[in-house]
Amino acid sequence: MRRLFSQGSIINVGLASFAEAVAQAGGKAAQLEWSPPAAGDRDAGLALARLVNHPLVEEATRTSHQRYLQSQPVLVGVGVAGKELPGLEGRMLLHAGPPIDWEAMCGPVQGAVIGAILYEGWAGSAEEARKLAGSGKVRFAPCHHHGAVGPMAGVISPSMPVWIVENADGGWRAYSNMNEGLGKVLRFGANGREVIDRLKWIAATLGPVLQAGLQKLGPVEMKPLIAQALHMGDECHNRNAAASSLFFRRFAPAALQAGMPADKLRESLAFMAGNDHFFLNLSMATCKVMLDAAHGVKGSALVTAMARNGVRFGIRVSGSGDTWFEADALPVDGLYFPGYGPEHAARDLGDSAITETAGIGGFAMAAAPAIVQFVGGTPADAIANTMSMTHVTVGRNNAFTLPALNFTGTPAGIDARRVLDTNILPIINTGIAHKEAGVGQIGAGITRAPLDCFTQGIKALAGSVDLERAA
Amino acid sequence: MRRLFSQGSIINVGLASFAEAVAQAGGKAAQLEWSPPAAGDRDAGLALARLVNHPLVEEATRTSHQRYLQSQPVLVGVGVAGKELPGLEGRMLLHAGPPIDWEAMCGPVQGAVIGAILYEGWAGSAEEARKLAGSGKVRFAPCHHHGAVGPMAGVISPSMPVWIVENADGGWRAYSNMNEGLGKVLRFGANGREVIDRLKWIAATLGPVLQAGLQKLGPVEMKPLIAQALHMGDECHNRNAAASSLFFRRFAPAALQAGMPADKLRESLAFMAGNDHFFLNLSMATCKVMLDAAHGVKGSALVTAMARNGVRFGIRVSGSGDTWFEADALPVDGLYFPGYGPEHAARDLGDSAITETAGIGGFAMAAAPAIVQFVGGTPADAIANTMSMTHVTVGRNNAFTLPALNFTGTPAGIDARRVLDTNILPIINTGIAHKEAGVGQIGAGITRAPLDCFTQGIKALAGSVDLERAA
Repeated sequence: MRRLFSQGSIINVGLASFAEAVAQAGGKAAQLEWSPPAAGDRDAGLALARLVNHPLVEEATRTSHQRYLQSQPVLVGVGVAGKELPGLEGRMLLHAGPPIDWEAMCGPVQGAVIGAILYEGWAGSAEEARKLAGSGKVRFAPCHHHGAVGPMAGVISPSMPVWIVENADGGWRAYSNMNEGLGKVLRFGANGREVIDRLKWIAATLGPVLQAGLQKLGPVEMKPLIAQALHMGDECHNRNAAASSLFFRRFAPAALQAGMPADKLRESLAFMAGNDHFFLNLSMATCKVMLDAAHGVKGSALVTAMARNGVRFGIRVSGSGDTWFEADALPVDGLYFPGYGPEHAARDLGDSAITETAGIGGFAMAAAPAIVQFVGGTPADAIANTMSMTHVTVGRNNAFTLPALNFTGTPAGIDARRVLDTNILPIINTGIAHKEAGVGQIGAGITRAPLDCFTQGIKALAGSVDLERAA
Repeated sequence: MRRLFSQGSIINVGLASFAEAVAQAGGKAAQLEWSPPAAGDRDAGLALARLVNHPLVEEATRTSHQRYLQSQPVLVGVGVAGKELPGLEGRMLLHAGPPIDWEAMCGPVQGAVIGAILYEGWAGSAEEARKLAGSGKVRFAPCHHHGAVGPMAGVISPSMPVWIVENADGGWRAYSNMNEGLGKVLRFGANGREVIDRLKWIAATLGPVLQAGLQKLGPVEMKPLIAQALHMGDECHNRNAAASSLFFRRFAPAALQAGMPADKLRESLAFMAGNDHFFLNLSMATCKVMLDAAHGVKGSALVTAMARNGVRFGIRVSGSGDTWFEADALPVDGLYFPGYGPEHAARDLGDSAITETAGIGGFAMAAAPAIVQFVGGTPADAIANTMSMTHVTVGRNNAFTLPALNFTGTPAGIDARRVLDTNILPIINTGIAHKEAGVGQIGAGITRAPLDCFTQGIKALAGSVDLERAA
């Protein structure tokens, strides 16, 4: 047996265990990755077979992708969530990901909910806030159900200021809250005094300064800004150093003309200047505007949202209405801060996967080789990650070019059919939260969207369209 | 003959014309680049043979390289050239590159000299200024002779504000003027009303605001700032978008605390925010501090300056004192703005090659793939350019890492011996000025340091050291 293997090498297609046996016996075996579509789920395979190359589905998917490409997100201002977000009323809190009840929420989201209740003054102590959260007297809903996206826990409460990003032709808007910086912050489930005080300062000072400055500056086209940041080492999900700097450089001179009190202006600019991730929430709202353009095209297999609540991962498909197709969120493979490891980590969390859904973030890692110092791997891995996403996307977004790949556009627009057909799971760069409320960020890394979301999405899409008649 | 070539392929060493003949005959020939050291100059070859592997020279070159690596440049403030620069007195103007007389100066440098005379009020019209410049009543000297560096024409006059960059341990300083932005600017030889007015505004408003803000901010360590910019797509010579943004983000909040008049502050921040090249002059002064650390080590073959006056290209070698080793400056191969071509171009110009001398600029092109849209070529060329410079440098600078090359340090510290031995000429990213005064920038591209500078440098070094006794 040893002799046989030592004289040649084996190419193994299928079960990796055979290749491992060969390797253990001293032979060489190249493991060619292959697995049946939909990981062997027969019903999903049949649904997929109906949808692939079907004229209606091809046309619908292309149409929704074109709408994503043609969308022109523009930052128009900053407002207050309770006034701007449709349907955000009374004692209601928004959270990241698909719907989830208080009891089922993970630690960081519960922590953020408690913080938001304290911030709104609906309770006087963390204990009271916890009771109130479980009493049924506070309503919970996904950010996505109210036009918004929030990173990590993603908790948005009525009196928080929000970014307003609009499609240039009007028609729809998307919103996100303000990035608080790193350390002990609400989005990682912290809710102590300093966290609440910062949120109050953001509402009283930063929000008004931003709004005043933006009115002087005028509407800011977001795609050219992101495109420029992609040429400066950002992928605009986990790395926003360039975009935050570029935005600051645009904003500061306008803010100085806005007639705001000098101390508020000074504090606000210092806060913005101190936060490399300041742009993240803007990036997310921008991506949501682009994807909302593509949503609701009958028969389209384009994925228009990926979001996680820390327990479940959900996706939406353009042709399948507002249904979330859910599976358990996966753990994150990454680099941990000293003293922490996977045993401390919450599962994948936040609406920020909207960036990957829009073709940036993990899909544009080739633009951001330096990010591997934060999420792990090598610059070659970063390029390989981007390349691999070409197998699951409808096309390229030539508004977002990647210098390291000779200025080709980023692979953009996930086709749920292709995910199922190839079993290549969409890649996501993300932060890692501690699983307990109040600790905060403990690392960053890379994870994947679970296959089962796409399996469900394809089954639903196949059932939703009268394919035979349409063809 | 055709049959012979069609059956195989030829490897041709030496004259390219033979390989061309083979190719014309329908055959395949790989042209292996090779030429004798010092391009066959026998005396230079003998001098080189004495210096290569000589213990004194090896030790001295390593020592000077270590001093370059260990230098810690810190921005400490902004002052007025006539007060700060040693020896800049009376009617004296500094220019880029090695020494040159008025009559010999190229168009853009003459244009800048005329502009500086008008700016200083030594003449009332361009015609008078031209006469005065030729009268011998204005003295000219290289910036480098007075501790300074200036991009393109590099003209510094006594009343201009200058950056002051100091080695952290004290001991020496380097200076540069303020970047005026693009378009019609003094450094490209323009000298109209708008140019002079801008220079006066820079002296009256920008300089004092910068100095006041920097005093609030405190000393700024420059190497970490450049290192961060290299991770954000800059090479800090022809691309400074990231460094300019990072510096602005650091500076603006401090400036708001400096108690400057609101209008001056507003104008200054708007000017800085509008200029992607604002950081260039700071980058240059920083590089000069690092290289001055390495200058004057007896026997060292390290190149400590490369500079061009638009006619002649000069280098200095650590072990050869203040002598300039000169040759005709080469043309620039690059991309031209619409309506311009090589026939309109001045020769390679400016002190900015100090950046390449310090291992950034063209040597760090692998950090800046997007720059090829400005200077020509492909991102693969940018990486190849950096890699090729490893053949002529003493080592790497691990303070300046390159993500695309897996975070290896940039090749840094040109060894004049290696240039001669390999005939690989140091690469330089640069702007292209119109050859006539007053037109301005017409493109950007890549050029090389001429071999003859290194040939002369090596001959002088071999003659300056009593090598037999030292060994």
